[in-house]
Amino acid sequence: MEKQTVQNLKDKDSVDAMFLVKEKNVGVGKNGRAFMVLQLGDNTGTIEGRLWDRVDELTREFELGDVIKVKGQVQLFQNRKQLIVHRLERIDPTQVNFEDFMPKASKDSEDMLVELLQMVRSMKNDHLRQLVLDTLEDPEIKPMVLRAPAAKSIHHAWIGGLLEHILSICRIMDFMGKHYPFLNRDLLLFGAIFHDIGKLWELSYENGISYTDRGRLIGHMQIACELVDKKASRILGFTEELRDICKHIILSHHGKLEYGSPKRPKFMEAMVIAMVDDFDSKVSTLKTILDNERASGEKWSRYNELFDRYFLLDDMNEKL
Amino acid sequence: MEKQTVQNLKDKDSVDAMFLVKEKNVGVGKNGRAFMVLQLGDNTGTIEGRLWDRVDELTREFELGDVIKVKGQVQLFQNRKQLIVHRLERIDPTQVNFEDFMPKASKDSEDMLVELLQMVRSMKNDHLRQLVLDTLEDPEIKPMVLRAPAAKSIHHAWIGGLLEHILSICRIMDFMGKHYPFLNRDLLLFGAIFHDIGKLWELSYENGISYTDRGRLIGHMQIACELVDKKASRILGFTEELRDICKHIILSHHGKLEYGSPKRPKFMEAMVIAMVDDFDSKVSTLKTILDNERASGEKWSRYNELFDRYFLLDDMNEKL
Amino acid sequence: MEKQTVQNLKDKDSVDAMFLVKEKNVGVGKNGRAFMVLQLGDNTGTIEGRLWDRVDELTREFELGDVIKVKGQVQLFQNRKQLIVHRLERIDPTQVNFEDFMPKASKDSEDMLVELLQMVRSMKNDHLRQLVLDTLEDPEIKPMVLRAPAAKSIHHAWIGGLLEHILSICRIMDFMGKHYPFLNRDLLLFGAIFHDIGKLWELSYENGISYTDRGRLIGHMQIACELVDKKASRILGFTEELRDICKHIILSHHGKLEYGSPKRPKFMEAMVIAMVDDFDSKVSTLKTILDNERASGEKWSRYNELFDRYFLLDDMNEKL
Amino acid sequence: MEKQTVQNLKDKDSVDAMFLVKEKNVGVGKNGRAFMVLQLGDNTGTIEGRLWDRVDELTREFELGDVIKVKGQVQLFQNRKQLIVHRLERIDPTQVNFEDFMPKASKDSEDMLVELLQMVRSMKNDHLRQLVLDTLEDPEIKPMVLRAPAAKSIHHAWIGGLLEHILSICRIMDFMGKHYPFLNRDLLLFGAIFHDIGKLWELSYENGISYTDRGRLIGHMQIACELVDKKASRILGFTEELRDICKHIILSHHGKLEYGSPKRPKFMEAMVIAMVDDFDSKVSTLKTILDNERASGEKWSRYNELFDRYFLLDDMNEKL
Amino acid sequence: MEKQTVQNLKDKDSVDAMFLVKEKNVGVGKNGRAFMVLQLGDNTGTIEGRLWDRVDELTREFELGDVIKVKGQVQLFQNRKQLIVHRLERIDPTQVNFEDFMPKASKDSEDMLVELLQMVRSMKNDHLRQLVLDTLEDPEIKPMVLRAPAAKSIHHAWIGGLLEHILSICRIMDFMGKHYPFLNRDLLLFGAIFHDIGKLWELSYENGISYTDRGRLIGHMQIACELVDKKASRILGFTEELRDICKHIILSHHGKLEYGSPKRPKFMEAMVIAMVDDFDSKVSTLKTILDNERASGEKWSRYNELFDRYFLLDDMNEKL
Amino acid sequence: MEKQTVQNLKDKDSVDAMFLVKEKNVGVGKNGRAFMVLQLGDNTGTIEGRLWDRVDELTREFELGDVIKVKGQVQLFQNRKQLIVHRLERIDPTQVNFEDFMPKASKDSEDMLVELLQMVRSMKNDHLRQLVLDTLEDPEIKPMVLRAPAAKSIHHAWIGGLLEHILSICRIMDFMGKHYPFLNRDLLLFGAIFHDIGKLWELSYENGISYTDRGRLIGHMQIACELVDKKASRILGFTEELRDICKHIILSHHGKLEYGSPKRPKFMEAMVIAMVDDFDSKVSTLKTILDNERASGEKWSRYNELFDRYFLLDDMNEKL
Repeated sequence: MEKQTVQNLKDKDSVDAMFLVKEKNVGVGKNGRAFMVLQLGDNTGTIEGRLWDRVDELTREFELGDVIKVKGQVQLFQNRKQLIVHRLERIDPTQVNFEDFMPKASKDSEDMLVELLQMVRSMKNDHLRQLVLDTLEDPEIKPMVLRAPAAKSIHHAWIGGLLEHILSICRIMDFMGKHYPFLNRDLLLFGAIFHDIGKLWELSYENGISYTDRGRLIGHMQIACELVDKKASRILGFTEELRDICKHIILSHHGKLEYGSPKRPKFMEAMVIAMVDDFDSKVSTLKTILDNERASGEKWSRYNELFDRYFLLDDMNEKL
Repeated sequence: MEKQTVQNLKDKDSVDAMFLVKEKNVGVGKNGRAFMVLQLGDNTGTIEGRLWDRVDELTREFELGDVIKVKGQVQLFQNRKQLIVHRLERIDPTQVNFEDFMPKASKDSEDMLVELLQMVRSMKNDHLRQLVLDTLEDPEIKPMVLRAPAAKSIHHAWIGGLLEHILSICRIMDFMGKHYPFLNRDLLLFGAIFHDIGKLWELSYENGISYTDRGRLIGHMQIACELVDKKASRILGFTEELRDICKHIILSHHGKLEYGSPKRPKFMEAMVIAMVDDFDSKVSTLKTILDNERASGEKWSRYNELFDRYFLLDDMNEKL
Repeated sequence: MEKQTVQNLKDKDSVDAMFLVKEKNVGVGKNGRAFMVLQLGDNTGTIEGRLWDRVDELTREFELGDVIKVKGQVQLFQNRKQLIVHRLERIDPTQVNFEDFMPKASKDSEDMLVELLQMVRSMKNDHLRQLVLDTLEDPEIKPMVLRAPAAKSIHHAWIGGLLEHILSICRIMDFMGKHYPFLNRDLLLFGAIFHDIGKLWELSYENGISYTDRGRLIGHMQIACELVDKKASRILGFTEELRDICKHIILSHHGKLEYGSPKRPKFMEAMVIAMVDDFDSKVSTLKTILDNERASGEKWSRYNELFDRYFLLDDMNEKL
Repeated sequence: MEKQTVQNLKDKDSVDAMFLVKEKNVGVGKNGRAFMVLQLGDNTGTIEGRLWDRVDELTREFELGDVIKVKGQVQLFQNRKQLIVHRLERIDPTQVNFEDFMPKASKDSEDMLVELLQMVRSMKNDHLRQLVLDTLEDPEIKPMVLRAPAAKSIHHAWIGGLLEHILSICRIMDFMGKHYPFLNRDLLLFGAIFHDIGKLWELSYENGISYTDRGRLIGHMQIACELVDKKASRILGFTEELRDICKHIILSHHGKLEYGSPKRPKFMEAMVIAMVDDFDSKVSTLKTILDNERASGEKWSRYNELFDRYFLLDDMNEKL
Repeated sequence: MEKQTVQNLKDKDSVDAMFLVKEKNVGVGKNGRAFMVLQLGDNTGTIEGRLWDRVDELTREFELGDVIKVKGQVQLFQNRKQLIVHRLERIDPTQVNFEDFMPKASKDSEDMLVELLQMVRSMKNDHLRQLVLDTLEDPEIKPMVLRAPAAKSIHHAWIGGLLEHILSICRIMDFMGKHYPFLNRDLLLFGAIFHDIGKLWELSYENGISYTDRGRLIGHMQIACELVDKKASRILGFTEELRDICKHIILSHHGKLEYGSPKRPKFMEAMVIAMVDDFDSKVSTLKTILDNERASGEKWSRYNELFDRYFLLDDMNEKL
Repeated sequence: MEKQTVQNLKDKDSVDAMFLVKEKNVGVGKNGRAFMVLQLGDNTGTIEGRLWDRVDELTREFELGDVIKVKGQVQLFQNRKQLIVHRLERIDPTQVNFEDFMPKASKDSEDMLVELLQMVRSMKNDHLRQLVLDTLEDPEIKPMVLRAPAAKSIHHAWIGGLLEHILSICRIMDFMGKHYPFLNRDLLLFGAIFHDIGKLWELSYENGISYTDRGRLIGHMQIACELVDKKASRILGFTEELRDICKHIILSHHGKLEYGSPKRPKFMEAMVIAMVDDFDSKVSTLKTILDNERASGEKWSRYNELFDRYFLLDDMNEKL
C-alpha cells in the first residue's frame, strides 16, 4: 500500500499515518465540550486536524513540534480536506527524523551545492572567491546551507529552499554577466550567494520554520555583514573598501528603504542583485500559489491577498 | 581634421559644424539686449548654444526642428560645455538627413532585426508566430521598427532604441524559458516584441523625439491592442480567447495600475514580461546615467532625481 | 396571502418560497455532522440559509445558480435574519425566469431607454449621435442594455442598473451643459453613455452577477474602445481623430491611473465625465448602504469599510 | 485711444499706465549694478516689470501694495510679455480705488447676491433659512460677501469670486435636490453658502489677496463654525443638534482628513456638499488654466503641476 | 474569600459575581438552539461570557449597559478565559455604582487634580492661568475631569484616564520648559491641559465608554475651541489673538492633517505639544499591550496590528 | 575694530577677512565674460561671494576647501547679503585652523563630555557601562566625539553638534527613566549615546561636513553595530544576547523602515529612544530654522519645505 501523505489523502479515506504538529489549539464547543484544532504536516503539505473526544486527556500527551501517529478519517469542508482524528499517539522525538516531516526542495541539496561551488570557482577575484568558498565549505556552515529554507512561508519555504533560491539566482547571474557585459560577474555571484545567507541564523527549522531571537532583533542582513567581517578578516589583503562593497550589496538587496534595506543600491551590480532576487522570489512564490490553486479545478484562483488579484489558472503550455 | 561633434567638442574650441535645433528661446537680457538660448544636437549628444548678437535678425532665419550651420566657440560654464554662437545659417531641409542628427543604437538595426526574426521563427504556436511575423514584415511597419526609439528620454531614447530594447528582452526571455521551464516561451517572446510596439505610433521621431496626439490621447498599449485585432483578424483560426490573452499581456505590462496598466498581470507569463521589461529598462537607464556622470571624473554622481540617490561611479570591472 | 420575499420575511415566519442559490457551502460541524450554508436570493435581496439534516443527500440535488423551492423557518442571528431550511427541491431551469430572482432597477428599463434615446437625438454632432444610436439600437446590444447591471456589487448592482446609472448621468450632463456653457454637451452625453458600456460584456448576469473572462483579462474600457472602432468604421466621415477623442474619454473615465485608467483626463469634458461618474456612483452606493443600515433602527451605522467611517442614519428630510 | 491693460499690451508697445505693485525685488546685476523686478497687476492680469536705471533712488519711492504710474516698453521674453520700466511714480493711496487693480468676477456681485437671496428664501426650514439670511444680510458681512475672493490663487481668485463660487454651487444644489429627491435641499443650500464663508475672514484682499493671521492659525472652517454659533444663538429654537449638523457640514467639506477636514462627511448631504465643492472648484481652476494656456496658440499645454499632466487645448465646441 | 474579579478568575473556577454587560449577542447554534455571547466587565478587565440554556427567556431580562449577577464556571478557550453562564439576574440600576464596573487610573483622581492645580498656579501669564483655572474649577466641569477616560480604547481608556494623561504630559512639559528654555512654559502647560479637554464631551462613560453624537459630528478639537471662547469671553483683556493661539494649539495637536488636525503646528510650542502628546499616548498604549501580552508567558507577543510588529516581552529591568 | 564675521557683515560694508571656500563655481556671463560664484563660510555662517574680474587668473589660485583672504564689499540681493569680491589670496593650509571656520556648539565640548561621563558612571549594568566608557574614553574616539557634528545639515550640523545632541537626549532620558519607572534607564542612556555614534565615521568634517564612502555605502547604524562587536568582545561576560539588544536599539532608532531602519523597535526602550531622538532632532532643527527666519523681521516665515508649512515667527516668551 502506498504511504499516506497529506498530498495523496482523499475524501473519506481512513488514515493511519504520522504527522508533525505545526499548530495546536484547544477550544470549548458551543455544547460545552472541548475540542482540538491541529495543523498537521509532512513533507508533502499541511492538513487541518480536528479531535472531538478525550480532548482533556489527549491534549497533555503531546506538544507543538512533536510528531504524532494519527488514526482517523478525511472529510471535505468547503472544498478543503480535513482530518477527523479518532486516536493519536506521540512518537519519541529521539526516534524521529524531523526533516521527513517538512517539505523539501525538488532537487538534491548535495547536487545543487556541487553546481554552486563549480560556479564559485570560476570567480576571477581571488578575495571574493576565497570569501565565498571559506563560507560554503566551513564545516559548521555547510550542513546548514544544505538544509535551510529561504523563508518562513511564501517563497522557497522548504528544506533546501535557500540553496535552491541561491542556485537559481546564480544561474541567472551567469547569464546576466554575459548579456550585460559591463556588469562585474564576481559581484553578481557574490550577491547571489550572500544576500540571504544570514537566513541560516535568522530562521530556525528544527520542527517547522520559525524566526530566531537574533533574526527578530537584528535580521539576516546584519548577520550576513558580521559573517563578511569574520571571514574577510582571515583573508590576506581583503581591504576594508571591498568589505564595504560586499556589505553594501547585502544591506541594499531589498531595494527600497520601506522593504527593510537601510541603504538603496548605489551601483549597478547592487541594483541588479536586488532586482533579480525580487524576480526569482516572485516567480517562485507565484508558482507555489498557482500549483495550489490549480488543485481546485477552477479556471480562476481565489482572491490572492499578497498580489491583490485573481489569477487565471490555465497552464499556457497546455493551452497554446 | 576630425569631424566636430557634440561629444568631441572641448573648451575653447572654435566650432564650424551643423546641428539640429532641439529647443529655441529668445530672451531680453538685463542690459535690455535680446539673446537666444538654443539646444543643439547631433548623433552624439546635445549642447546648449548662446547667441548675443543680431538676435532680432537671426531669430527669423530658422525654426525649431531645423538643422543649422553654426560658427562659434566652446566655453565651460559650471563644468558643462556651452557653445557661444557667432554666426549661423539654416540648411535647406530637403538637403538634410535628419537621422544624422539624432543618437543611434550602438548596434546595426538591420542586424538586430535579422536576429529578432530568427528567434520569432522558432516560436511553436503557429498563430502567435504568424501574428508577429505579419507585423515585423509588414512593409509599412518594418521601416518604423528599424528606426523607432523606445522612449522620449530616459531609456533607449535613440534611433533604433526600441528594436534594441525588444531584442535585449527577447534574449532574456530565451534564457528564462529554459531557466523556468514551466513558462510558455512563445508568449514570452510575443510579449517581448509587442509590449511596446505601440510606441511606433505613440512617438514621432522625425526631428527629435516627441509624443503624437494619438500617443497622448490613447497611448501605446491601446494602439498595440488595435494592432493585434487588425493582424489577428487576417489569420485563420486566431481565436478571440488568444487575442484577449495577447491584449492582456500588452495591457498589463506596466505591472501596476499606478504605472498606467489598466490590468495587473494575471498569469505567470504576463507577470514575467512586466518584470523583465522593467528590469531591462532600469539597467539601460542607469547605464546611460552612469556613463554621463563618469565624464565628470568624480567618485560619486550628482543627486539623481529619478532614482532618488547618489551613485558610486567606480567601474567594478576595473576596480576588482 | 402576500408573496414571501427576502425583504418581507420576519423572525419566526414559516417559509415556503423559491430562491436563487447564490452561494453554496457544505461543512462538517463540530459534532461531526455535515451542514450546508447557502446564500439565497430573490429580487428583493439575499438571506443566509442553513440546512442541518440530510445534507449528504440534498447537496447532490442542486448547484450554485439553480433556483430551489425551500420550506423552513426564519430566525434572528445577531440581528440578522437567517433561514433554517427544512426541505428543498430544485426547479427545472427551463421553467425558471432567472430575472425574477435578481434585484431590479426601481424604474422600468423600457421607459428609461425611451428617455435616453430622446436625449441622444438632441445631440448636434452627426457622427457622435450616429455612433450612439447605432449602438443603442443594435438588435444584439439593445436587449443587453435593458438588463445589464452596472457592477458586480457596490453600485447599481441590479438588473437594469447600468441603464439607470447611464440615464442618471445623462440627466446630470444635460444640466451641466447648461450650467457650464463652455462644455461640449455632445461629448458629455457620449461619455455618459459609453464610459461603462463595455460592462455589457465585462459582466455576466445570467444567474447572479459575475465577471466574464474578457472582463477579467482586458476590462470594460478596452471592450468599449473596440466597440467605438467597430461602429465608427461604418459611419461615413467619422475621423480617426474623433475616434481617439472618444476612446480617450473611455480610457480616462476612472480619473486616476491607480483607479485603472491608463490615461488621465486631458480635456475638460473628459474630466467632467470622470468626476460625474464618480459622483453618481458614490451617491448610489451610499444610498444602498444607508437604506440597509437604517433597517437596524440604530442612530449610527456599523463601521463601513468602503468609506472608512460610521454614518449617521438620520434621514434629514424627516429630521428638519 | 483704448485704455492700456495687462491683457491688451503687445510686444513693443510703449506703455503709460497705472498698476498695483504685487511683488517687488531689488537685485544686484552681474555687472554690479542694481535692478528691480516687479509684478504689476490690474484687473485684467499680471505682468513682470523690470527696471534698470536709478534703482537706488526709485526703490524708496514706493512699497509693495502701492499703485504706481509707469512709463516703459513691452518686450517678449520666452514668449511671455515683460514690461521694461523707464519711469515710475507712486499714486497717493487715498486717490486709488484698489479694486480697479484686481481681477473681478465676470458677473455683477449685486446681481449674484439677489439671485442667491432668492434661493435662500425658498428654503423650507425656518431656522436654517434665518441663519443664512441673518448672515448674508448682516450689514458688516454683506459688503464682504460682495467682494471676497474664494482663494489666494487657483480657483475663483478674484474680487467677487467667493460669491460666484457660492452661487454656482447653489444652482447645482438646486438641480441635485430634484435629481436625488432623497437629499435635503435646505442642507445642500446651507452647505453651498456656509462651507467657505469663513474665507471672508481667512483672506485679506485689500491690496492683493493674502492670508490673515486668523486664517493661518485657525482657518476658515473654524471661523465658520464660530459664525454659526454667533448667529444661531440669536435664533429662537435653533437647537444644539442642528448647530452640530451645520458645523459638521462645514468641518467635513474638504472630504478627507488629509485635505484638512477634521471630520469625514458622515451623512449624505455632507458628502454631496464636499463632492460638489470639489467639482466646481476643479472645473473653475481648469477653465482658468486652459484659458491662459490657449493664449500660446499651441495644441497642448505646458506640463501642469497641479494636475500632473499636459492638457489638450482644443475647444471641443469649435472642433465638433 | 477574596472578591471575584475578571483579573483573578482562573480556569475551572466557580463564579458568583456581578459584571457590567458591555456587549450582548444572541445566536442560533448549528443544532438549532439559541445561545448568547456576552462581554462582561468589571474594574479589572473584560471576559467573554457564553450562555446555552433558557436563552429566549433570559435575553429579555437585561440590556446592554446593565449590571448582572452571574453564576457559572470559567473555561479556557484558545488560552483565553471564558465564562460559561449558568444563571443570571439583573441588578436594579438605581442600586448600582457603574464606576465600580469600569477600570480606573492607578492613581487617585483627587490627588492628581491637586497636583495639576498646583502646576497651573505656577503659570505666569494671568490670562492663560485664569482660563485654565476657570475651566478646571468650574463646578460642572471639575467632576467630569475627575472621571473622564482619555479614549474609547487604546490609551488611558479608563476612569480618570484623561486626568492621568494630562498630568503625565504636564510633568513632561515642566521638564521640557527647563530643558529647552526658549519654549514658553505657560503655553506648554495650557496645551497639556486643553489639547484633549474636549473629550469630556466627546466621550460618554456612563456604562462603558462610547462616542457622543457631538463627538462624532464635530469632535473634541472643535468642542475645546468653543470652551476657550466661552471661558475667555469672561476674562478681562483676553485678546482675540491669544484666543487664536490657544485654538491653534488645540486644532494642531494631532500634528498632521491625515491624523485629523485641520492645521499643522505653526510655532514651536504647538509642535512640542503635538509631539509630547503622541509620545505619552504611545508609551501608555504600548505599556497596556505589553502588560496584557506578558500574561501569556511567551517571549514574543502575538502580531500587534496597531504597531504592525511582534514585541519582545522581556522586562528589561529584570533582564539586565 | 570688531572682527568681521559672516554674521556681523552689513549692507555696503567694506570687507577684509578670511573665509573657508565651501562651494566654487565659474560661469560665463551673458556678456561673454567669466565670473565666479562662491559659498564662503566662517564659524558664524555662510555668505555668497561673487567675483567679476580676473576670474581666469584667480580661479587657479585656490580650491574648494581652502581658506582665502578676501577684500570686497557687501550688497543686498533680494534681502540676502552678498559679498562682491574684489581681491582674494589663498592662505597656506598649514597655517590654518579649519575649525575656526566652521560653526560650533554653543557649549564647550569638554564640559559636555564631563557631564556625559558622569551620567554614564551612574549606569547600573556593569557590561553596558563598560561598553560606553570603553568607547568614550578610547583615545582614538574621544577626540572625534569632542568635535563631530550630528548631521551634514539640518540639525546639530556644527562642530560638537553630535555631543550636544547626545547630551541633550541623555538628560531627557534621565528624566524619562524617573517619569516612566518601568523603563530601564541603562538602556535609555546606552541608546542616547550609541544611536548616532556611527556618525563619527559616517561624516567627514575636516573642511566642511560631508559623507565618507563608508557612510554612503553602509551607514552609521551598521558602523555602530560593528563598534559594539569590537568593544563588547573585550568585555568579559558580555553576552551575545546583550549585544543583539544593543544592536537592535541602534538598528531600529529611525523608528520606521522607510526612514532607513532595517528593524522596527520591538521593545519599549528601543521605541522610546527612537521617539526621543526624533523629538530632540526636530526641536533643534526647528530652532535653527526659526532663528534664521527671524532675522528677516517678518511675522511669518517663508515656506519651509522640510516641514511643508509657514511658521509664525513670534517669540512666545516675549509675546505672553
